[in-house]
Amino acid sequence: MTRKSDNDQLSFTSGRIKKIGILTSGGDAPGMNAAIRAATRSAIAAGREAVGILRGYQGMIDGDFIPLQSTDVSGILQLGGTMLKTARCKEFRTPEGRRRAKEQLTAAAIDAVIVIGGDGSFTGAWVMSQECDIPFVGIPATIDNDMYGTDYTIGYETALNSVVCAVDKIKDTARSHGRIFFIEVMGHEAGLLALNSGIACGAEVILIPESKAQHDELQKFLEKGYRDKESSGIVMVAEGDEAGGALHIAEQIRRDHPDLDVRISILGHIQRGGSPVARDRINATRMGIAAVDALLNDQKSIMIGLDNNRIVHVTFNKAVKMNHSIDTGLLEVHNLLNGM
Amino acid sequence: MTRKSDNDQLSFTSGRIKKIGILTSGGDAPGMNAAIRAATRSAIAAGREAVGILRGYQGMIDGDFIPLQSTDVSGILQLGGTMLKTARCKEFRTPEGRRRAKEQLTAAAIDAVIVIGGDGSFTGAWVMSQECDIPFVGIPATIDNDMYGTDYTIGYETALNSVVCAVDKIKDTARSHGRIFFIEVMGHEAGLLALNSGIACGAEVILIPESKAQHDELQKFLEKGYRDKESSGIVMVAEGDEAGGALHIAEQIRRDHPDLDVRISILGHIQRGGSPVARDRINATRMGIAAVDALLNDQKSIMIGLDNNRIVHVTFNKAVKMNHSIDTGLLEVHNLLNGM
Amino acid sequence: MTRKSDNDQLSFTSGRIKKIGILTSGGDAPGMNAAIRAATRSAIAAGREAVGILRGYQGMIDGDFIPLQSTDVSGILQLGGTMLKTARCKEFRTPEGRRRAKEQLTAAAIDAVIVIGGDGSFTGAWVMSQECDIPFVGIPATIDNDMYGTDYTIGYETALNSVVCAVDKIKDTARSHGRIFFIEVMGHEAGLLALNSGIACGAEVILIPESKAQHDELQKFLEKGYRDKESSGIVMVAEGDEAGGALHIAEQIRRDHPDLDVRISILGHIQRGGSPVARDRINATRMGIAAVDALLNDQKSIMIGLDNNRIVHVTFNKAVKMNHSIDTGLLEVHNLLNGM
Amino acid sequence: MTRKSDNDQLSFTSGRIKKIGILTSGGDAPGMNAAIRAATRSAIAAGREAVGILRGYQGMIDGDFIPLQSTDVSGILQLGGTMLKTARCKEFRTPEGRRRAKEQLTAAAIDAVIVIGGDGSFTGAWVMSQECDIPFVGIPATIDNDMYGTDYTIGYETALNSVVCAVDKIKDTARSHGRIFFIEVMGHEAGLLALNSGIACGAEVILIPESKAQHDELQKFLEKGYRDKESSGIVMVAEGDEAGGALHIAEQIRRDHPDLDVRISILGHIQRGGSPVARDRINATRMGIAAVDALLNDQKSIMIGLDNNRIVHVTFNKAVKMNHSIDTGLLEVHNLLNGM
Repeated sequence: MTRKSDNDQLSFTSGRIKKIGILTSGGDAPGMNAAIRAATRSAIAAGREAVGILRGYQGMIDGDFIPLQSTDVSGILQLGGTMLKTARCKEFRTPEGRRRAKEQLTAAAIDAVIVIGGDGSFTGAWVMSQECDIPFVGIPATIDNDMYGTDYTIGYETALNSVVCAVDKIKDTARSHGRIFFIEVMGHEAGLLALNSGIACGAEVILIPESKAQHDELQKFLEKGYRDKESSGIVMVAEGDEAGGALHIAEQIRRDHPDLDVRISILGHIQRGGSPVARDRINATRMGIAAVDALLNDQKSIMIGLDNNRIVHVTFNKAVKMNHSIDTGLLEVHNLLNGM
Repeated sequence: MTRKSDNDQLSFTSGRIKKIGILTSGGDAPGMNAAIRAATRSAIAAGREAVGILRGYQGMIDGDFIPLQSTDVSGILQLGGTMLKTARCKEFRTPEGRRRAKEQLTAAAIDAVIVIGGDGSFTGAWVMSQECDIPFVGIPATIDNDMYGTDYTIGYETALNSVVCAVDKIKDTARSHGRIFFIEVMGHEAGLLALNSGIACGAEVILIPESKAQHDELQKFLEKGYRDKESSGIVMVAEGDEAGGALHIAEQIRRDHPDLDVRISILGHIQRGGSPVARDRINATRMGIAAVDALLNDQKSIMIGLDNNRIVHVTFNKAVKMNHSIDTGLLEVHNLLNGM
Repeated sequence: MTRKSDNDQLSFTSGRIKKIGILTSGGDAPGMNAAIRAATRSAIAAGREAVGILRGYQGMIDGDFIPLQSTDVSGILQLGGTMLKTARCKEFRTPEGRRRAKEQLTAAAIDAVIVIGGDGSFTGAWVMSQECDIPFVGIPATIDNDMYGTDYTIGYETALNSVVCAVDKIKDTARSHGRIFFIEVMGHEAGLLALNSGIACGAEVILIPESKAQHDELQKFLEKGYRDKESSGIVMVAEGDEAGGALHIAEQIRRDHPDLDVRISILGHIQRGGSPVARDRINATRMGIAAVDALLNDQKSIMIGLDNNRIVHVTFNKAVKMNHSIDTGLLEVHNLLNGM
Repeated sequence: MTRKSDNDQLSFTSGRIKKIGILTSGGDAPGMNAAIRAATRSAIAAGREAVGILRGYQGMIDGDFIPLQSTDVSGILQLGGTMLKTARCKEFRTPEGRRRAKEQLTAAAIDAVIVIGGDGSFTGAWVMSQECDIPFVGIPATIDNDMYGTDYTIGYETALNSVVCAVDKIKDTARSHGRIFFIEVMGHEAGLLALNSGIACGAEVILIPESKAQHDELQKFLEKGYRDKESSGIVMVAEGDEAGGALHIAEQIRRDHPDLDVRISILGHIQRGGSPVARDRINATRMGIAAVDALLNDQKSIMIGLDNNRIVHVTFNKAVKMNHSIDTGLLEVHNLLNGM
């Protein structure tokens, strides 16, 4: 982290950059629109032009650009998804694809690019920025909140609340029927969403890839259920859990305990959309401004992050190579409250 | 329908019934608690006692009864699920099971029973009421809204809104990525939930068991997508659709159109719980009162229904034997708006 | 009610009408956008043109028209407010104003007009339609649900749920603090919203203009509070209640009972906006189609209504002159449950 | 801040404390129940007893205590308000009141007390702890988030989202009608809620007590409205704003600009209740555990806080005497985006 700004103020010093391209890439996340709006408006406030690049790197290769005025980003702050659309793009992984992308940017006189996305998106930006002289700045947006160097990624807080609302509903049924629900939430290799939603919902057991010991907690819960003749509850399962996801685990439990009423719910895409909660709107707004500020201060190949609620700059190098570790203290919080 | 009350007023004439048992049976539905509250309080208001029978017919067989005072049902109006819990009970399908249930009711001096549930629950009540002299009155509660003789069943309106909220979120992602989502909603043999939520969400295609022609609409939508080079949209699939559910259909589309980005979301149990919407709270309240009123007017073996927003009585005989047909006019509404 | 269509199907017979103007007028209501979308798309499906008239009758006078294509109304189904904007317009009440409006319609070749609004909006349409040969059809949209001849007006169901959600929250505080909250909801001369939300929230007392006797219920509640030493609860007050609204009543209670902890909450404009609930989206969609259908079947000076969930036609004459009465049965439901 | 725990783990060393009293005091805040649940369950997990003190200090004086088992706090995690109820208590401000409170605690063998509340509640705890040997630990709960020494207070995040949801709805109407809404949110002397919700909602102007310069922004906005002939927008007003609240400001604007359509909405108590969002549930849970942990480590007269998402201890002395300053960087973020 090279620079810690003391506040969210802008200081536009660089005269080199006249036109800033903005794109969203990878999975969509609630709050992306808020970041687009903030980046667009602060670019304009700084006397620059803003251009939307449609469908991520694919649109960069295709030259699919739209000018962004202040009114174009009006009324999008509270909308989920991304107005610039997003896509995964294989062609951009080839030197030829990136060469074409460079040509399109040059033809459109785009001087710098803000990439709103996750790990893979920043890797692409980093590779391309090493091949040409166009500065890239990243804004982390992924509901997994698993990026190194930042406490926060856009969309996480909304996804967390979407999961909590869904589990609150399922809990009504679990209690009414005396059922055990295995609920699978997103998190390829990161259990943060499962862990936090599990605590927020009072889940009986939380299974995350970061801790194998949690499977013992599941056994304890089942045994306790037998003792108390009360077998209802919620088991949160991170998608990436090594035991193979909710479906696999639930089937095993059904085999071992045929008398239990075990159900599965895979929350899937309802975790990804929806109007962003306040936190995601505010932080995405701050990050959008900070990205423009960074570019106009001649920064490049960095990701905007939040550390202790302050804007920080993290080099792409670190952001994409290093791992984000989970706070296992929270897991102990959970076990303490539920393992009695 | 034997009797049409002109309003929701009570007229307590029967002196025979002193103690009324209340149970919930089958799948839980939001608003069941509101019905329990209303039945309990109107029984007490009429100078009778109310008793909760836990876990449906299983609790009846086990004699699992709790007295219900006015304060016991305080603060439950807005809660999903059912405070009396629910279960499916095989034993009740045997004469021996029902004999034991009868003994338990007699031992507890329960004179009459209000059954809050669906088709299967009323069949049980009807069979038992033919074997003994205890009057049963039913209140329809199922999120499918597929009961004959009533425009409305408790929980449907909340489930409909839960589906709509979920699809609104998924639509953010569908648009952002240019994806086609197949969304499976509940409805064993009834497409009402899929049809209404599809219209409310502006789904591109709605597949329901009541209309095979809808598969042509799906083909038209896919072809239109090719023409317009815009293949994103929502396809609602009723669980019971004959093509085999969202999973099956989506896989077939993937085979036929490998270039499309097809995703599946099975909404599952999030449709079933949650705080009931206003309509479910109000109607469940009216039905709870009407059930007590019916019993105290010496009615039995009837289900409370709503016809043109008025309380009606439907004999169990009709309610469980006859089918609920779907309003295909709505389907044409949908096709008109989307088949352009 | 002159005509009852058996379903929501369209039969486009009139060749006279080529271009249909659509406007929203009066207070905005959630679902107006759904009606605009449906009217636009069904006009286009019938081979006609759709034109948006901005800011109600003001835009008609100013010639503020926008062509509406199918894509222009894409993505508005779930949005509150009205994309055509709305306004109250004094000028339209003058013959001169209406003459100018007529000229603008003629200049733009608009053959017919769909007015989405309330009482006052239909009065305007009725007057103008008597002065010129342009047919007008109305779609009732007002959160008060107080129109004669229809069971339903667009926006009511969403407003009802907005009130219920707000009161659920306030109830947390009322219980935690042992307070009595007077909550004022909209309803100029109609207590329907207060009555239904009061039942849905388990309000202790409901004060509506249609029933003076409810003030006795308030006294009973206060006295009961003294007996039980438990003075917390919710009193719903319709805006138009004769005692002068929540503020006035609460102040009087404070004077009479200085020991009570009395608070006031005026819900105000949060009742009016927000994403429409499923029911409002579906019914607004049906009504939008039915309005186009009516025009193309040479109907005029009628309002689209819902009677027993079927589309009906109500003459403007009746719709604006006759009163909507409230179902006092619901009030007795409420008093029964709370007056114990 | 005397001690910084590296995680949320418990280490129960003190054998002196056997029975811990828990109370909520001051205004209710969503998440209080989550803190009660966590404190109760971690006390029990540590082999201690938990006792609920009803209605804050009033219940302490009255000896209104209830034993708390693990199941007593089951199902409250997601509920707003406080199951222990709360009250303001004048008697506790007198030495005589506190003497009686001390006697009641002693009689019930309560060794230590956890106070969940705000500034005033901690002042009371601090005074009493200086007069007797019973240790007090505080958990900050107030929707204003204005406590010194902690980044976070229970309830703030939920209140922020409640405000944002309400303003989203009002914005529909503001846009549809071309109106300017003055929306008053809570915040006696702290504009944090107004500032953050204003950014999250894209409010045009934010008026907070911490910055007089914002009134110039209001003038600029009004002038810009004249230029653009577009006078619609949202003005957030913190309750404590020196110009006298939304009502006063709006009336002045109406006098100065009679042509503007100015409306007022005072959000009031809907900001205070409701099911807590995920963040409030999680942090309240962590703080509940940390409070028990602190007591069992012989801490007293401290408030649990969160600093950079870590549990910290802040002496009552500092917590109640020092002021919480607002991050004006956020205000500049806002002005940048809206002052164009």
